[in-house]
Parts: sequence; C-alpha cells; structure tokens
Amino acid sequence: MRRFPFHLRCSSCSNVYDANQLINLCPKCGGPLLAEYDLSPAPELRSAIRSRAPQMWRYAEILPADEDIVTLGEGNTPLLPSKDHPDLWIKDESKNPTRSFKSRGMAVAVTMARHLGAKSLAAPTAGNAGAALAAYGARAGLPVFVAMPRDTPQSIIEECRGYGAQVELVAGVITDAAKRVQQYIAANGGFDLSTLKEPYRVEGKKIMAYELLEDLDRLPDVILYPAGGGTGLIGMWKAFDEMQRLGWIGDERPRMFAIQSDGCAPIVRAFDQGLDNAPEWESPRTAAWGLRVPRAIGDRLMLRALRQSHGGAVAVEESQIEPAAQKFRMQEGIDVGPEGGAALLAFRRLMEKGSIRRGDMVVVFNTGGNKY
Amino acid sequence: MRRFPFHLRCSSCSNVYDANQLINLCPKCGGPLLAEYDLSPAPELRSAIRSRAPQMWRYAEILPADEDIVTLGEGNTPLLPSKDHPDLWIKDESKNPTRSFKSRGMAVAVTMARHLGAKSLAAPTAGNAGAALAAYGARAGLPVFVAMPRDTPQSIIEECRGYGAQVELVAGVITDAAKRVQQYIAANGGFDLSTLKEPYRVEGKKIMAYELLEDLDRLPDVILYPAGGGTGLIGMWKAFDEMQRLGWIGDERPRMFAIQSDGCAPIVRAFDQGLDNAPEWESPRTAAWGLRVPRAIGDRLMLRALRQSHGGAVAVEESQIEPAAQKFRMQEGIDVGPEGGAALLAFRRLMEKGSIRRGDMVVVFNTGGNKY
Repeated sequence: MRRFPFHLRCSSCSNVYDANQLINLCPKCGGPLLAEYDLSPAPELRSAIRSRAPQMWRYAEILPADEDIVTLGEGNTPLLPSKDHPDLWIKDESKNPTRSFKSRGMAVAVTMARHLGAKSLAAPTAGNAGAALAAYGARAGLPVFVAMPRDTPQSIIEECRGYGAQVELVAGVITDAAKRVQQYIAANGGFDLSTLKEPYRVEGKKIMAYELLEDLDRLPDVILYPAGGGTGLIGMWKAFDEMQRLGWIGDERPRMFAIQSDGCAPIVRAFDQGLDNAPEWESPRTAAWGLRVPRAIGDRLMLRALRQSHGGAVAVEESQIEPAAQKFRMQEGIDVGPEGGAALLAFRRLMEKGSIRRGDMVVVFNTGGNKY
Repeated sequence: MRRFPFHLRCSSCSNVYDANQLINLCPKCGGPLLAEYDLSPAPELRSAIRSRAPQMWRYAEILPADEDIVTLGEGNTPLLPSKDHPDLWIKDESKNPTRSFKSRGMAVAVTMARHLGAKSLAAPTAGNAGAALAAYGARAGLPVFVAMPRDTPQSIIEECRGYGAQVELVAGVITDAAKRVQQYIAANGGFDLSTLKEPYRVEGKKIMAYELLEDLDRLPDVILYPAGGGTGLIGMWKAFDEMQRLGWIGDERPRMFAIQSDGCAPIVRAFDQGLDNAPEWESPRTAAWGLRVPRAIGDRLMLRALRQSHGGAVAVEESQIEPAAQKFRMQEGIDVGPEGGAALLAFRRLMEKGSIRRGDMVVVFNTGGNKY
C-alpha cells in the first residue's frame, strides 16, 4: 500500500502548510504544527500491518516517511499485565532504544530532518529526549547539540556523550536549557527538535496508541500518562482520530489522565482551574526529571485531550513517587522509572477516589527505565 | 498447535531423564542436561508463529512451557544493519528486559523452576545474568540470591538490589561466586540456576537463532558471538538442528565464532590447541565482564559447535575492546556493551585475515547494553 498524503496544519490558527520543507512552529502565529493525513477507511491496512516485522515503522502508511529511515528498532514495546490488579496493564516503554518512549519521536523527527536537508540537530532536554536525540543523530550521521539541567543524572549525561553528542549543562530546568539551545542555534545553526517545535516527534509517539489497539484488540477504558511536555498524550489523542477515519474504531475513546508530581504540576493546576492553557509553574521540584517541565508548549492540546476524553489530571505526592516505583520494581520485575512510578501511584489514588472502578481496563505508561 | 513432547538428555553420557522434575546436572555423570524434543516436519508451524504477538514465547511449541509463563516481554530484539559494512548486521540483545540476552534464558528457567516447585532461586553471575535473575525472580514472586565479583559495575549491583535480590559480593571472579552460591544453597536451600547447571536457560537463548531465521528468511553465513559461558552459542547450535528436523532449513549452518578477550580466552586457547575441553584460564582479566569466565561448564559443547560449523574462536586485544565499542556507539547509535564491542572488533580482525569475505552475510551479537 502507499502512504497517505499529508500536509501540516497549525494546531492554533489552522493555517495549512506544505510538508515538503524543514519547518518549526507556525510562521503565522507560532503555534505547533501537526501532520494531517488524507485518510479514508482502510480496514485491510490493519491486517497488512499486523503481518509485517514487529517494529514502529510497520505503520509506514500513516507515518511521514517510508524510506531512508533512521531506526534503532524502536517500538513494539511489551504490554505487561500487572500481578496485583487484574485490569491493570503496563505499557513498558523502557524497552525502547535509549530506554524511553523518546526514541519513537526522535526516530521520526531525525528521519524527516535529514530527509528535508538538516545538517545538524539541537534540542533542550530533561534527560531522556537528549539521550534519544544523541543516539538517533549518531545513527543518522548528523552532529547533535543538547542542553540539559546541571542536575540531570550523571548516567544520562554520559549516555548522551557516549553517542558523540555535544552536551551543555545549564543552571535551572528544561526551559532554561531551551534558551541556551536558541542561543546556540542563532550562533551555530542547526535544526531545532524541541518538543512540538517541529511536527514529527509527535508522529512517532502516536504509534503507542496504535500498538495498544493491536495488543488489546480494543482500546483500554483508561490511560494514565506521566506528562512533562505531554507529547505522548497529544500524539495518542491524535492517533485515535486517525484510527476512526481509517475505520478501525468507532467514536469510543479511553479516558486520558495526565500524571504529574505535586512539585511541578502546571497541567493539573490548569485543569483544576478550568484554564485552557497552563501558566508556568514556579520553582519546579521533582526527582521525576521527565516531569520537571514547568511550562509546556503543548499545554492547550493536552488540556483539550484530557477534557474531551472525560479524563483528568492528577498530581501525586513527590515524596511517594520513588517508593512507589521501588515497590513496583520489586513486586513486578519491571524497569520502572520515576515517571512510571508517578503514574502507578496515581493509579492507586484514582482507585481510592473511585475515578477508576473495578472492571475498567487501565493502561499505565512506564515512559522510561530507571537510570541510576 | 500443541507443544512437542520432550525429555532431558545428558550432553555428556547421553542418559535420558524425565523432564517433569526439578533437576540440575546429570545425576549419573555430572554433565549438562539438554531438552530434546520429539520433533517432526512442521512447515505450517513457522507461519503460525509468524502471525503471533512478537515476543519470545510465540515459539511456544518448541519451548518447555506455554502456561504460567514468567515474562517481561523478552525477545524479538532488533536486527540492525550496520552503516559501515553492507553485509554486517547487529542483533541487538540490549533491547531485552534488564538490557541483555540473559533475560531470555532466565524467563524460561524461572518459569520452569517455579512450575516444578522451586521456592527460591540462586546463581553466580558476572553481572547481567544476576540482573536478569533478579527481575524474573521478582516477576515470579520468588526470592533470589546472587553472588558476583566485588568489582562488578556498581550500576549492576544496584540493579539487582532494585529488584529485591539478595546480593553478595565476593573476591575473585564468577567461579569464586559459584563456590559461594554452593555454600549458600547448602545452608539455606534454593534452586541453582547457574549456566548449564539446569536445562532451561539454554532453551530461552536458542530462540535467538529462530529469530535470525525469521528476520533474514535464511541463516547468515557467519555468526560472531562474544562467549563467556557460551550458552547463547550452544543454544543457537541446538536450534539449527531443531529447525532442520522441523523442515524449516536444510543442512546448511552458519560458521560460528566465539569471541573472547585476550585477557581471558580459555575457549580460544583450547580451540587453537585442538582440545575438546577448555582448561581454566589463570588470572582472568577483562573489563568486558561478561567475558570474564575462566572456566565454562559448556566448554565441550561450545568447542564442538565451533568445529562442526567450520567456524573458530578469536581473542581480541583487551585494550582495544572499549575503544571499538565507543566508536560503534558514536557511529551507529547502538547501545553497544563491552562484549558487543569485542565481537565488532573481531569482525574487523576476521575481515583483515580473510576469514570473512565480502559478500558473507555476518551477524554480530551485541549481547548486552553499555551499563556504566
């Protein structure tokens, strides 16, 4: 089958752009651009995909590229049943290259950036996105610059350098690293792969939703997603619409919950206050470094998805995150990182509150491994 | 389809045992026991397997169990083309749970041990096998004891403890850790899961060969395998015979090469001297800790496979292993551990010597990730 043609549409002002260009945010309004495919019902495509080699790029028709692909074997991560709760499943994204879901987005974004002529790549990171960019940049043969908070775990800093990336440590958090990346690009050039500042990382991440449908042969009732920048959640929400247009599902949707730490919970606060954007969180503090994102460029998209899905946003106690992750590693043998620990803790809280009921099929995302 | 029935056969004295018992070495002669299946041609099984969810246990008919499985989503690791050599492929076992091929063996061995009544588990390790046993033991709900050299990388020690295993550090190398495990079991009980001292770790590892056939739709001409205990190599060699009896391949075989460091190369020395067993290597010294195995219980099986396959054994320069791994991480973006680095270095050496020729399809195993 052939790929569905696509263009880019601004998620803010709805302006449309040709996809055949190296582009960041909407030139008109500065909003994030998303890929929009000319989809039509294609039930046969689903079984064709099922018959292919098990990795993310088996979904070629609904991805922006199918040749000269930069891949390290990302995707098709296991969906593991929990031993403790009969209806709880863990989508274990730590089984990706560089041990997090970030690999999916970088595989697609680096493929497209190289395809469209980028000569070097740069991004700020809370940690795991940098590791993924470093690895995929190396695979693509393109130089990489990443800036990250000075207190990012040493193992991640070394991981990035191990793949040959130029790493700069900055005081502060990811938003400070983002400023440094802007300076660097202004002085040295390079294509900016910041979350949602280019259209294709979200395309890789959306495949998580397609895999859920493939694994369960239905959609779960509830998804708990630890959200920093929130692109995984945004990508999956986009994917459900695509699936419906492909005729693979009806109008059912999982209830989507964004999980944050109470030490940095801008999305939860905005959700609770009924805002459609999420003002910056002051003094963000969490050891779940992937959640230490005080301001997310995808805030509107994320809040819209949470509300439309009849889901919600939960801030868990910072002090309980690591104990929850530890308990889960010991009980289930899964490489649960702090972000996954937060989501598993939120599962308990939502059960206690009655927001999740017995019989609800729940998928919790372990977005990355436990990197000491 | 139903699983093929199987029994256990001693690889040394050929005595046969019922599989329905918790058993270690051959009670008669002390040799390693292997599972022997009553196979018959089954071409349709190959396509049936292909249609199943992509993980190791899709090969249920030729594994010793198909229910109450202890799994973390192991197997179906990517086979990645190298950018540098058109005929070089890397089977990236770092994409397994706990980041090494050891997961495959422990998944099957822990499944069978629990199935047959074991109440606790123990093994010595050079590092990665301990991490795998700790995770699968946690998943199975069984307590785990592991002993390992005192200078094992700290990240691995913490990884094992993170899954709740009792870890004891010993002076010396894995053979010293093995003595400590014997003492521990004598005093406290527990089932011994040392390499080849029970029949089922090799069953998990053999699936690597089945996956190669599935990925390439043929067997490669050459396999380079970094060998400590060598069970991966022994398992794959066993699998080729099974495939032939299933009617999936003919009598073709890849040339198998065991790769070691010149700081600990008992198999290479024995191979070169024409011995059929490998005497202990004195003062083993290598930072490729998975290769720091001075005496392998599977030495005879390994040497037999290398010779029957018209392959060989290569010792690479210890000082060049880490630079080779580093270069490969930077050039290819793959999470190459020291053992994989040794094998990639051996690839170059064998090309230079003419033992591998242009046009030979070569698979190098990256048996585990780079754990700092």
